[in-house]
Amino acid sequence: MKTRIRVCQDGTYVKPASNKLAYGTMVFVRVGICYDSLRHLMRAVTIATRYAAVRHQSKIDSRESEPQILEYQTQQYKVLPQIATVFALMFSANTVRNTYYTVQDNLKDGNLNLLPELHALSCGLKALCTTDATSGIEILRLSCGGHGYLASSNLPRIFVWATAAQTYEGENTVLWLQVARYLMKCYREVSRGGQLQPSVVYLAEDNHTIIPTRDLTNEGLVQRLKRSVFRMVQSSAAELESRQIAGERYERAWNASSIGLVKCAQAHIRYFVCKQFVKSVGIYEGSEPVKQLLEQLCRLYLLYTITKNQGILLRAGSLSNGELNKLEGELGELLAELRLDAVNIVDAFDCHDAVLNSTLGSWDGDVYNRLYRAAMESPLNKSDVTDGYQKYMKAHLKSNL
Amino acid sequence: MKTRIRVCQDGTYVKPASNKLAYGTMVFVRVGICYDSLRHLMRAVTIATRYAAVRHQSKIDSRESEPQILEYQTQQYKVLPQIATVFALMFSANTVRNTYYTVQDNLKDGNLNLLPELHALSCGLKALCTTDATSGIEILRLSCGGHGYLASSNLPRIFVWATAAQTYEGENTVLWLQVARYLMKCYREVSRGGQLQPSVVYLAEDNHTIIPTRDLTNEGLVQRLKRSVFRMVQSSAAELESRQIAGERYERAWNASSIGLVKCAQAHIRYFVCKQFVKSVGIYEGSEPVKQLLEQLCRLYLLYTITKNQGILLRAGSLSNGELNKLEGELGELLAELRLDAVNIVDAFDCHDAVLNSTLGSWDGDVYNRLYRAAMESPLNKSDVTDGYQKYMKAHLKSNL
Repeated sequence: MKTRIRVCQDGTYVKPASNKLAYGTMVFVRVGICYDSLRHLMRAVTIATRYAAVRHQSKIDSRESEPQILEYQTQQYKVLPQIATVFALMFSANTVRNTYYTVQDNLKDGNLNLLPELHALSCGLKALCTTDATSGIEILRLSCGGHGYLASSNLPRIFVWATAAQTYEGENTVLWLQVARYLMKCYREVSRGGQLQPSVVYLAEDNHTIIPTRDLTNEGLVQRLKRSVFRMVQSSAAELESRQIAGERYERAWNASSIGLVKCAQAHIRYFVCKQFVKSVGIYEGSEPVKQLLEQLCRLYLLYTITKNQGILLRAGSLSNGELNKLEGELGELLAELRLDAVNIVDAFDCHDAVLNSTLGSWDGDVYNRLYRAAMESPLNKSDVTDGYQKYMKAHLKSNL
Repeated sequence: MKTRIRVCQDGTYVKPASNKLAYGTMVFVRVGICYDSLRHLMRAVTIATRYAAVRHQSKIDSRESEPQILEYQTQQYKVLPQIATVFALMFSANTVRNTYYTVQDNLKDGNLNLLPELHALSCGLKALCTTDATSGIEILRLSCGGHGYLASSNLPRIFVWATAAQTYEGENTVLWLQVARYLMKCYREVSRGGQLQPSVVYLAEDNHTIIPTRDLTNEGLVQRLKRSVFRMVQSSAAELESRQIAGERYERAWNASSIGLVKCAQAHIRYFVCKQFVKSVGIYEGSEPVKQLLEQLCRLYLLYTITKNQGILLRAGSLSNGELNKLEGELGELLAELRLDAVNIVDAFDCHDAVLNSTLGSWDGDVYNRLYRAAMESPLNKSDVTDGYQKYMKAHLKSNL
């Protein structure tokens, strides 16, 4: 990029060789937003995990004392999948960032082939990361009960930062429709015998009519997801076509099919993220214990994603009720296993206390003293009765209105 | 209630005849929160609908000018189901409020029979109303793009009010588990031949093995939903039992099954809300045009709820992929029809401009002048360059650090 000066010293703007090259910076910024989003989620899940290990409440077993709230399965279900999501989003962001560098290299030789793929991936991943990070942070904020609503927990502020990214640098619905446009274009390419890029190459596979596997391994689940997305793409393309046959212009048919098109795009990117997670863990070459932990987190992410999006798999006949029951059972057991490592994993995120800026989530776990000090510092607690009462309310309340 | 003085003039507390009577106020407050939630949603949807009718952007048909954004199907899908949700929550809140009055009357005669039913319904409806209102408001805020993030839109403030209610007066997960406890208790009652209260009487029906209808009318859809909830209750009860048979104590089995139990409770209350909507519209005796509109909104709510929760229906075999395709097609058409009445319906909510307090959603639709005035009033715009720049940043930026 350095070789192509766009604005000269005297302010003259020099157009790039192709208008499409202007996409480069836009793509780069969107990948950056993916990293921002997963870091927001990382901070929120650090705070919520530590709090859930410090906070004791109610009883699971009436013969025992109040457990850490992280012992409750419903709490584990709120917290642990968000830890796995941080990794899922990171591996996919890494993949798209690497594609960006490849495209930048190709551009030097005037090769624009991968640009549409990169554009679609960066649109979709930006939309998915910002959506999932925001909803994850809200789940985590709620997991801290009333304390999560406190400004001093910092969770409300993290939420506000994260949710804004759903709108800026490409509003998410607009981005999903960009992804859908790419999918429909590639799907049509198949019948014309065109070459497809890596993320959509499955649209050209001809084995979607059979379920390729009955096993529930990671690879089996990703296969089933792929098959379900293929069915959705196929069904949206058919709807567009039948509307056109009925006399609608393509643009109007597009608008009338757009709820389904957005769902296609979301499913396609979800499939991409699951596939990248499995692939990245597979080629990981660090220590064995870390690899094992990554495998558990990957499994958790798949189970969480698939049970939450069960509708699309069931509709495609890619998964049965009995299989879902099994997966749900496994999810419960995996949560209980990972619960033991939860605090260690978020400690390994290595978010500094100054960055977390939270009464609930500091490294030392000293929640209640921090809460007390924050309360003491609140302007509302500077006097027993606030000035506002003396100035405005007292006269009214003491009169006989 | 007036006849039972609880705290005397001298401060003495007089205990009620039964400890359970203390639930009364708690129930009343929870029903009140349901109304608060739907009113927050009502305000947000008024703002978003009016904005979507004023705002023009992009093109659906390249030969025509920029349409109102409410013409986009994806926009209709964000806005219109939230209008229907306001009505859905209101009809259910009315039903639970009436049950509350019945229970209060019964209590005078020492009849506590309906109290557990009322307790479960008020827990569940509070959890559902606060969850759905909050997520609906966030969808509506996002539907206004960058303008929705402005404080002057008032949508962020409405969201903050609404989301707090998910935590206070019974944290929602705790409330869902209360509902689940009631469901499991009632399900066990059936085998003992016990009498069930109205909201759970379906647990005693013996026709859940067959799909009673293949039609897709409102009644047909509610039947299918009922059948699906029954299957979930049955499956959760079976899990609890098999864990106990395997040697777990009931309390531990409960915790290990609680993700599924929460889903049972949510599905049960969703079924309740759908049923009440259909019933309330059925007995509505106002003018014919209003009744027709209510029928359309009821249908929209059912289609929206069922397609969003398709997984539970598919798993129970209560609905097929082909039927879901039909319902989705109908949903798209209904959105386009209801779009014509959208502004009129929110006008009929009659939320005063002073209550909406929004640059985007005032009655006169004068969005851009209001935005301009709000910008002019912002302290940030009092000078071309903010004081902070002169005081802190200029020296750094102009130096050669």
